[in-house]
Amino acid sequence: MARALRLAVRGQYTAHPNPMVGCVIVSGDAIVGEGWHEVAGEAHAEINALRAAGDRARGATAYVTLEPCAHHGKTPPCTRALIDAGVAEVVFALDDPYPDVDGRGEQALITAGIMVRKGLMRESVAQLLAGFLSRNARGRPRVRLKLASSLDGRIAMADGQSQWITGRDARADVQRLRARAGAIMTGIGTVLADDPSLTVRADAIDTRGRQPLRAVLDSRLRMPLTAKMLNLPGKTLVYCASDVERQRLTDAGAVVIRSSGDAAAVDLRQVLADLARREVNDVLVEAGPRLAGALIEQKLLDELVIYQAPHIMGSETIGMFATPTWSALADRQNVTITDVRRVGDDTRITAAVIQGN
Amino acid sequence: MARALRLAVRGQYTAHPNPMVGCVIVSGDAIVGEGWHEVAGEAHAEINALRAAGDRARGATAYVTLEPCAHHGKTPPCTRALIDAGVAEVVFALDDPYPDVDGRGEQALITAGIMVRKGLMRESVAQLLAGFLSRNARGRPRVRLKLASSLDGRIAMADGQSQWITGRDARADVQRLRARAGAIMTGIGTVLADDPSLTVRADAIDTRGRQPLRAVLDSRLRMPLTAKMLNLPGKTLVYCASDVERQRLTDAGAVVIRSSGDAAAVDLRQVLADLARREVNDVLVEAGPRLAGALIEQKLLDELVIYQAPHIMGSETIGMFATPTWSALADRQNVTITDVRRVGDDTRITAAVIQGN
Repeated sequence: MARALRLAVRGQYTAHPNPMVGCVIVSGDAIVGEGWHEVAGEAHAEINALRAAGDRARGATAYVTLEPCAHHGKTPPCTRALIDAGVAEVVFALDDPYPDVDGRGEQALITAGIMVRKGLMRESVAQLLAGFLSRNARGRPRVRLKLASSLDGRIAMADGQSQWITGRDARADVQRLRARAGAIMTGIGTVLADDPSLTVRADAIDTRGRQPLRAVLDSRLRMPLTAKMLNLPGKTLVYCASDVERQRLTDAGAVVIRSSGDAAAVDLRQVLADLARREVNDVLVEAGPRLAGALIEQKLLDELVIYQAPHIMGSETIGMFATPTWSALADRQNVTITDVRRVGDDTRITAAVIQGN
Repeated sequence: MARALRLAVRGQYTAHPNPMVGCVIVSGDAIVGEGWHEVAGEAHAEINALRAAGDRARGATAYVTLEPCAHHGKTPPCTRALIDAGVAEVVFALDDPYPDVDGRGEQALITAGIMVRKGLMRESVAQLLAGFLSRNARGRPRVRLKLASSLDGRIAMADGQSQWITGRDARADVQRLRARAGAIMTGIGTVLADDPSLTVRADAIDTRGRQPLRAVLDSRLRMPLTAKMLNLPGKTLVYCASDVERQRLTDAGAVVIRSSGDAAAVDLRQVLADLARREVNDVLVEAGPRLAGALIEQKLLDELVIYQAPHIMGSETIGMFATPTWSALADRQNVTITDVRRVGDDTRITAAVIQGN
């Protein structure tokens, strides 16, 4: 199963919006086939592994990270293929919460006389598929906020200067975060100040041509037609609270979505629900303190990834989160540090946001 | 020499103001004696090692982390003892910059016909003795700033609430930092807000009864007679720019020192020079953003130790450094991360301040 999990990870940049899945087929002591789900619409992990195993799948055990599907989606059901191949036993880590599967895969295998075990390495697989599970269980994507800050937690000088706070290795690492995301979210303030592209550079990572959706929160539709991202590969969604000016943006190729909220801010829960409907499992937020602060105040953040550069910026600067409603120490948000590592000269700190506190 | 260095560290809480020194005496392949300098005024490392070796020191090699002394201080010269013991060779890591030694130890050994080698592990020893070297070379102690902050770099809520930002293990670790310091420095603002004790708790660490000096920067002598530290073991120094009110504080047992500077701030360089004259090698600063900011703006900080607690405090808070003179990105202070580790639930980040930038 550990091997299957490692295979699953190979689909991290390409399987969207499908979950990453890996499969290993073992006969006696030997691995006779392995596979992973590479691109949505193409073969699932089990099919790739069965193909590799050929006749040796008969009587073998298949280890799959996720419950095999029992429905005809873009491809035929994997349970059928496993049954036809004569597999004797299927071990899977995690129930598939997707409504069309959700226990039916397991049932189909049992009905066909295949021995089924489940739960092995469930936690590790659940962590890998946290976004997919969030979308299915909570109706919203998993939200990860990426920040580049100084050692004293500052993201820009008071006048906005912030270029190259972190080093080249950190910026390359951010490309990987982007490629793993179904959508990249930012605020109109960041668009107006920095005009970011929010794309995955093809020379950095092979996403099979896929670009994450770009979601801009722009309550009053101030998005300029000259914004760089409007002329880049991939789709730009502009979420607004008032869409009087929508035509000029739709003409420029953007998708304008009106959500409730006032002129000051769009409703973040609505935006996330809309992204889930667009099959986004994971959102990467690259934004200024206002959007970051709104997300943390509204308890909508799941993970923080902070690239901390080795310098001190001092007081005449801008912080990570604008949290005007937090006035007491008790308001602070607890997190759990899950990873700390060196990325070039910078320190990358990953933290899970504890929603219970 | 690595063993001698480890022995030297054993004096970290007690050798002040003397340097930590370790010594290992090797005869053939065997260690025949080892020692370290434990308490100022008592035997030096070489003497302790020679005592342990006894007759076996004859013809042996002595590894010492610091050049042996050649002068009568509180104890007789170590070079004399090494010569009398019949040691054949002395290997030391670092020249002793102390004016009464400074090459004379080496010379005395050579004159006596002992083979001398030096430089082995010089960098590691220099790092251990950075404070002692700073006092001798720069006429000021090494300055280490300790901070307890949230993951977003905030040290208190805007109204000052800051108790228990970091956990118990971090606070225990701070006791070790205090015990290693010759003086602990803070600002009057911190005294008025938090009334800290700035002592080493005897139940935490055995310093042989020594308490670091407490240095309070208090330009206008606002120090209240009720301040907790005035009634605790150890000496409190109060640095001011105007000493009209000194009598009430000296009556309370404090040492009041007038330095130049205006009502807003005492001259930090003068304060550090005074502490060096008082044989302080290492200063630990535990202070608010004003003093921390002044130290970093004036390029007087050598090391930062940040205990980063796993929570986000947001914007209605106070930062680590008040740096009113820094307005451009180019003003920031570069540092080198030298250590990152988990201390309880907190992350301890140690960074050397790069004074060249």
